[in-house]
Amino acid sequence: MLNKAIDWDDTIAAAATPPGVSALGIIRLSGKKAISIINDLFPSKDLSLSLSHTLHVGFLKDDENILDEVVVSLFKNPSSYTGEDVVEISCHGSPYVQQQVLQAVINKGARLAKAGEFTQRAFLNGKLDLTQAEAVADLIASNTAASQKAALYNIRGGFSKTLQQLREQLIKFSSLIELELDFSEEDVEFANRNELSDLVDEIYVSTIELMNSFQLGNVIKNGVSVAIVGKPNAGKSTLLNTLLNENRAIVSEIAGTTRDTIEEIINIEGILFRLIDTAGIREQAEDTIENMGVVRSLEKIKEADIVLYLFDVTEMREAELQQTIESLHPDNKKIIIVANKSDLDHTKKTSKKYPAFPGIIFISAKDNTGIDKLKHQLYSMVAGDTVIGENNVITNVRHYEALQQVVKSLHEIKNGLQEKVTGDLLSLDIRRCLHFLGEITGEITNEDRLDYIFSKFCIGK
Amino acid sequence: MLNKAIDWDDTIAAAATPPGVSALGIIRLSGKKAISIINDLFPSKDLSLSLSHTLHVGFLKDDENILDEVVVSLFKNPSSYTGEDVVEISCHGSPYVQQQVLQAVINKGARLAKAGEFTQRAFLNGKLDLTQAEAVADLIASNTAASQKAALYNIRGGFSKTLQQLREQLIKFSSLIELELDFSEEDVEFANRNELSDLVDEIYVSTIELMNSFQLGNVIKNGVSVAIVGKPNAGKSTLLNTLLNENRAIVSEIAGTTRDTIEEIINIEGILFRLIDTAGIREQAEDTIENMGVVRSLEKIKEADIVLYLFDVTEMREAELQQTIESLHPDNKKIIIVANKSDLDHTKKTSKKYPAFPGIIFISAKDNTGIDKLKHQLYSMVAGDTVIGENNVITNVRHYEALQQVVKSLHEIKNGLQEKVTGDLLSLDIRRCLHFLGEITGEITNEDRLDYIFSKFCIGK
Repeated sequence: MLNKAIDWDDTIAAAATPPGVSALGIIRLSGKKAISIINDLFPSKDLSLSLSHTLHVGFLKDDENILDEVVVSLFKNPSSYTGEDVVEISCHGSPYVQQQVLQAVINKGARLAKAGEFTQRAFLNGKLDLTQAEAVADLIASNTAASQKAALYNIRGGFSKTLQQLREQLIKFSSLIELELDFSEEDVEFANRNELSDLVDEIYVSTIELMNSFQLGNVIKNGVSVAIVGKPNAGKSTLLNTLLNENRAIVSEIAGTTRDTIEEIINIEGILFRLIDTAGIREQAEDTIENMGVVRSLEKIKEADIVLYLFDVTEMREAELQQTIESLHPDNKKIIIVANKSDLDHTKKTSKKYPAFPGIIFISAKDNTGIDKLKHQLYSMVAGDTVIGENNVITNVRHYEALQQVVKSLHEIKNGLQEKVTGDLLSLDIRRCLHFLGEITGEITNEDRLDYIFSKFCIGK
Repeated sequence: MLNKAIDWDDTIAAAATPPGVSALGIIRLSGKKAISIINDLFPSKDLSLSLSHTLHVGFLKDDENILDEVVVSLFKNPSSYTGEDVVEISCHGSPYVQQQVLQAVINKGARLAKAGEFTQRAFLNGKLDLTQAEAVADLIASNTAASQKAALYNIRGGFSKTLQQLREQLIKFSSLIELELDFSEEDVEFANRNELSDLVDEIYVSTIELMNSFQLGNVIKNGVSVAIVGKPNAGKSTLLNTLLNENRAIVSEIAGTTRDTIEEIINIEGILFRLIDTAGIREQAEDTIENMGVVRSLEKIKEADIVLYLFDVTEMREAELQQTIESLHPDNKKIIIVANKSDLDHTKKTSKKYPAFPGIIFISAKDNTGIDKLKHQLYSMVAGDTVIGENNVITNVRHYEALQQVVKSLHEIKNGLQEKVTGDLLSLDIRRCLHFLGEITGEITNEDRLDYIFSKFCIGK
């Protein structure tokens, strides 16, 4: 655990609700003087004598000056969010009044909290580990079911429990090997090298699993971009409209209508997909403006996470489809092939038309058929079988980077074991691995890094 | 008291904090089902068994779906803001999460609250009278010390106490006179006409006092406009800058620099003054654009609540000042005469230069001398001796209009008494007066009017 900061003894205060006129606004205090400060301002009773987790209604007075009629929530150390004495003052929702209350609280000895400082104190007091604290920020920033669930999973312990257990086992080995060093002249082995090797494998598997989940984690946090690509008049804009259930893109019968790229966001089972409607890709665009549209399309394809290739089932033969898909060169990009206008194909053999492409999804954007299947396919392309909120998912780039270092150090331990290096060298590699595992959950950290992590929080949290 | 609305038995819910990402957001419920609804969503304990005014930490679950980790505040009927069971759910400050929580609460049987409906229920349950309820909205909208104090004064009972007492005395007379009607054949007088006359006088004095306070009340709510007027180069822009402590207007040595009018707001002892810098008024403006500026100035003078006439003490003689002040014709407008550039006047007789104008304030806008005196003068021109937050001040136009009706009916009672009209006629006039007095505090009202009053509140209040 790091040294406590110099300003650790301060009582901190901040508005915990957004600025703006509303019914209520909350001013939050935490620290040793929280209760004595509120007692100075709340003459109707002595809150130091009140029980924790109680509510108190009364006037807030700065000397003779009435500031507001408020409700005070009392959370006494250690049964509070921060682990310190916490007081929340529920004021009337006037920014002016809240400013006055905050000012009064500061005049009585509190100081303005830094961003994330309440949660930082909760972490430093052992109420949350670092991944849990980070999940609080993720929950506040969450804007979909998936980001909400992933954050709540991590607030409740999430993957850091697994990591902590593995880390503890590794610490045991580390101690045994360090004990060997004390007896180095006697050439003993307290730490069973085979068992250590098994543990390293186990940690390796868990780490790789977590790292693989980051792609989904990133998608949960930042969404996934889908470029809708196809020849003019394949029905890209109609598909976009159907997915959006509204008339965002101008749909017309004239090929090449969509000049500029259009981005729209849809939410499929809690994941945000940014749909990019691209201008129809043709070999020769007929005028310059449209040509610019095509160039932009190709750029969008490069940037997209998924390419959705849409074609007209009444016009495209398999050979041409084969050629087009190859020419799209999606650089390992996930591609989803969609046959549109199935309502116009009366051959009754639609689903057998492209034997080389068994994964094709047949839809009619116009009639809204096959759309649910397409949505499900988009979802499973990013989420696979992972149940968000029940499986470990890394959503934080800091965790991902630490896991990369863990993998690196696991390789080194493994190499050391194979080459039968001496205990002192092995011990160094294990310590390195422990360090990075500990960095994730916050057992190992430093003040600057913590300050950086919490600076990305809201004020008042 | 009016009939209770049809949807009175509903349990209502709304977000009580502004939209936006922040540390916390509050969802508020009120009504008979508030506790059973939260119990459905909060599996960790049965809140119907918990005491009022207690706080409960736990996960909010919609069936198996975890929504958030929350703090629930419990206020049991009748010890709550509305007088009903009230539950406040303190969620993480993600608009998405709050939306989910609100949705869950509605799925369990609450409905979305209308604007002001919590306070409307508080009023209907007798927790607040109507002027107190209106003061809650004023407090939320307050943006200065004066508007805050005036609102808090009225929340605590304010002038409605006085009115209620007077109304009760009048009711006593009304009953006595109506009793006379039952004995009309015996020609008795239970109600002493002289005492009634005295009471009417007393109510009249109180009412007029309250009506007079409305000018200040209006200023407290809406601010007061001050047109700064004077010849070019009198130092109007410099004065404005000095009052603002910043360089808002472009100050230059060239006469006629200020072409357009500039509005700035300063806060003097909690009252907002909108300062309007007008183009220098000259007899003949030299170019057209400036001429337009002058025309606009004259309009601004007409619109202003106070005219501040500024002149250069080194240039102006008393005769000219006299003539100018007369020509300004401020239509009964309050005028404040300010002599600027006192730093340049070395005659040592500055203060004796204008014996006909004893109220002149001598300043040097450049050296910042005399400015505090000027500010104090501006403040006392609108507030007089009234101590805001300790004296009755009407800030609400609805109250003012009802008081006008009260005065009218008082005149009628008075006339009736002088003309010795019969008891039944007198009784009608008294009932009229009682009606308007009761309308102010809400003893007499109707549902439409109430809905209108509360519709101006925030949602969630």
